[in-house]
This record gives sequence, structure tokens and C-alpha cells, in this order.
Amino acid sequence: MSEEGWQQRKRPPRLERRVEFADYEATRDFLDAVAEVCEEMDYYPDISFGRTYVNLTIHAGDDETVSDEGRQVAERIDRLVPTSD
Amino acid sequence: MSEEGWQQRKRPPRLERRVEFADYEATRDFLDAVAEVCEEMDYYPDISFGRTYVNLTIHAGDDETVSDEGRQVAERIDRLVPTSD
Repeated sequence: MSEEGWQQRKRPPRLERRVEFADYEATRDFLDAVAEVCEEMDYYPDISFGRTYVNLTIHAGDDETVSDEGRQVAERIDRLVPTSD
Repeated sequence: MSEEGWQQRKRPPRLERRVEFADYEATRDFLDAVAEVCEEMDYYPDISFGRTYVNLTIHAGDDETVSDEGRQVAERIDRLVPTSD
């Protein structure tokens, strides 16, 4: 999980990441790839999106820490983010 | 557009609708169908979702009213909502 990609939020404790895209096609490709990861891991972050952005939120459990599973999902989603080079 | 389905919000002016599902598969089927409508209409509401819910928001334009196009998208999305009978 890249330190610059996700932000650890305190109240309520959660991991958040925003990704922006050039067009809707790229947004949808990303969402489809994220959905595959979620289904495979059986772990479903809260996701909000519009035409050219996606916000992902991975919530902490009752112990107020993000689970290992949540962090694994975050790492796998990181790998789906297009590199801007 | 069903009156019970969408709520007209004032600040900022917008239409909102929440739909709940039994499982992720149903959620994803709905999201895929909504994506088809959005692409066809070239109109992209803000959408947030988790494993078993989807929230849709259609924002007003600068004139503070939701456009005819936005209302058409809302109507078409209404037809995609599974009936609970």
C-alpha cells in the first residue's frame, strides 16, 4: 500500500483514496477491475464515483483499526491505479 | 420518475435516490445497468455504493434546477430498480 495513495483518517478510523481519470471509459475500467478484487476478497469498500473520479473508503472494525484484509484490498487496488507517466 | 423514489433536495438543489439490494451480485448488476444508461445519455450522476446499497445523486445546473436530461436519466434509472414483490 503506497503511503502517498491512501490517507489514514481518524474519526471514524478509515483509509481513504481518491483517483482521477481522463474520461468515463477509464473510470469504468478501473471500477470493473476494483469489483473483481472485491469479489475475489469478499471485501467491499465504500466507493463513490462520478464521470472522472473514484473515492474509496475502507472502514475500521469495531476495534478502530483497519483489518489486515482491508489493508490487503487497499494494496491490490493500488496496483490497479493507472500510473501517470 | 416515481415521486417516492427520488427526493428533491434543496441545498444544493439535487435529486437523490437510495436503492438497497440483497447481495453484492444484485448491486453490481444494477450498477452495470445504470452505467449503460449513463453512457447512452452521456450523463453521469454521482454514485456511491457498498456491498448492498447504491446512492444516486443528480445535481442541478447553475440555474438551480435539475435539467430535463437529468430527469430523464432519473426516470430511466427508476426502471432498473428491482421491484420488491
